[in-house]
Amino acid sequence: MIDEERARRALEGVRHPESGRSIIELGMVKDISVEGGKVRFTLALPFLDVPVRDQLVRDAKKAVEDLEGVEGVEVDVREMTQRERAYFFSAQEGATPEGRANDIRHVVAVMSGKGGVGKSLVSGLLALALRERGFGVGLLDADITGPSIPKMFFRRPKRPQGSHDGILPVESEKGIKIMSINLLLEREDEAVIWRGPLISSAIKQFWRDVLWGKLDYLIVDLPPGTSDASLTVMQAVPLSGVVLVTSPQELAGMVVRKAARMAQRMGTPMLGLVENMSYAICPKCGAEIDVFGPSRAGEIAKLFGIPLLGRIPLDPKISELCDGGRIEEYPLERSAPIAEALVKRVSD
Amino acid sequence: MIDEERARRALEGVRHPESGRSIIELGMVKDISVEGGKVRFTLALPFLDVPVRDQLVRDAKKAVEDLEGVEGVEVDVREMTQRERAYFFSAQEGATPEGRANDIRHVVAVMSGKGGVGKSLVSGLLALALRERGFGVGLLDADITGPSIPKMFFRRPKRPQGSHDGILPVESEKGIKIMSINLLLEREDEAVIWRGPLISSAIKQFWRDVLWGKLDYLIVDLPPGTSDASLTVMQAVPLSGVVLVTSPQELAGMVVRKAARMAQRMGTPMLGLVENMSYAICPKCGAEIDVFGPSRAGEIAKLFGIPLLGRIPLDPKISELCDGGRIEEYPLERSAPIAEALVKRVSD
Repeated sequence: MIDEERARRALEGVRHPESGRSIIELGMVKDISVEGGKVRFTLALPFLDVPVRDQLVRDAKKAVEDLEGVEGVEVDVREMTQRERAYFFSAQEGATPEGRANDIRHVVAVMSGKGGVGKSLVSGLLALALRERGFGVGLLDADITGPSIPKMFFRRPKRPQGSHDGILPVESEKGIKIMSINLLLEREDEAVIWRGPLISSAIKQFWRDVLWGKLDYLIVDLPPGTSDASLTVMQAVPLSGVVLVTSPQELAGMVVRKAARMAQRMGTPMLGLVENMSYAICPKCGAEIDVFGPSRAGEIAKLFGIPLLGRIPLDPKISELCDGGRIEEYPLERSAPIAEALVKRVSD
Repeated sequence: MIDEERARRALEGVRHPESGRSIIELGMVKDISVEGGKVRFTLALPFLDVPVRDQLVRDAKKAVEDLEGVEGVEVDVREMTQRERAYFFSAQEGATPEGRANDIRHVVAVMSGKGGVGKSLVSGLLALALRERGFGVGLLDADITGPSIPKMFFRRPKRPQGSHDGILPVESEKGIKIMSINLLLEREDEAVIWRGPLISSAIKQFWRDVLWGKLDYLIVDLPPGTSDASLTVMQAVPLSGVVLVTSPQELAGMVVRKAARMAQRMGTPMLGLVENMSYAICPKCGAEIDVFGPSRAGEIAKLFGIPLLGRIPLDPKISELCDGGRIEEYPLERSAPIAEALVKRVSD
């Protein structure tokens, strides 16, 4: 026979995809009632239009439907009160569950200030080159509104598994552990319309509540800008340092200098500079074309007293592989020396 | 006897619980009509599902019901238009948006979600092409942490003048009125390390406290992402609509679709799509190179039912002019048709 207590226990197994915590523990389930074989309960959401809404309703419904003796399940959805919401957010960020065994030696954030200069590409290639050298490598996509990492690494959408202790990252073919908001969305092009505090708490959860396990390197791919996401990573994550990414455009250089000044102000070590889109190679005649003008990476590196770790050309092949979820097939000749220089820097 | 004026005065006494301001002052009451003793009016809400909805309807209804001679009150509820919403949000903060001498016909935001696809370039070229057609044009740089506009338009640093009434924008050589955080910083590469609320308030000031004067078009250059800056512009500025900018990379396309979904959710009209970096031209052999892969702009435009306004190639000449503060020297052949299509769209 089905009763309230059994329904509640089944719902305890349903995890919020963002924190991996039970929806019962988060105070999301209200007013469970059972009449005959019919179960009815209310799902309280922090905001009515949270992206995980449909998924949560479906998961919760299914958990109860699967119980023996259940003939029908009705789920009412409502928005949390202010008080419930506060409880929800603190429970979500609550004490790290016992038994967590994250052991991460070096955390390196990849930053540029400017968008579209190739932070994600550099993050991905670095992770790959480090993995190729035999290191345990994780990749945390801290770009919540414009995440690029999953598209680069996976041909088909992947979903992280929740476990009792937290969320398990998704593993790439070569064994890089990856976490990104886009692994949690129903559709890859769903918009995440969040103000700063929610962005920050998502990043903190990716850091604290993901079961990274034992890693030599965790690469953090930062979004553009020197606002919430960068601030949160620099404040809440024990960084070994940042790798700055620039392009030859003086305009990009100016914004990258802003990022470097932020790192200085926050006391975060700068490990080096990578110049992306340094030049293009004409597939017809082989000419090297300075599509974004002459390199200025040397100047910037000198200005901040950091090494120029390497230069990466604008290569249609990279775009193609990244768009196809096949970045791991890209030859390492260009990124291996960068990774090597980085390893040297962090072990100094 | 009850009449419209008495009903209006009674409703003036109803306060919005969040700001304490009168719902009349906030522009929430529309179409008051009286027939016999029956009063009917519309309550316009910024969003249909605001938490205070029921309370507002109840309070407003009661205020009128209590009047002598009233036999019945009917309240219709609807969502505000983009323009009404912008008025509401600025009135809530105590500003009188229409009080200033600004007289701006069309506000167009340039958005992409993704960084580095050329929002600022498109904003600049659009402003220029509109100016060339004889319009009064302003350019508001809403990218607070990575502002690009001043570098594109000015060879030397410029400073806006303050006046008794507000800040005067800086004028470009061709007479485009420009405001950007970088015009206010001591050094162009100073970092602006602000969390969301400060970002939002800076943007609101650029909108409200800058003496734009009389403009036909104000172009707003948005930063990447669907967080604070985009939210603030969509909520607080009466947009005619957004122009979306993409690049041929599928990865960019995915993030641009997020931006489009945000515009849909916020009820902001989409005016069209521009594809930047569509191809590069080899300066040696003249070949057109798909550096970022084949164009996908047509697909995206179709998906959202918006026109493809135009395509702009990756041209070393543009980079050079932008880096040198000489964007106004770039020939208009590629941007003029885009501006023309835009003018047609907003005047439809």
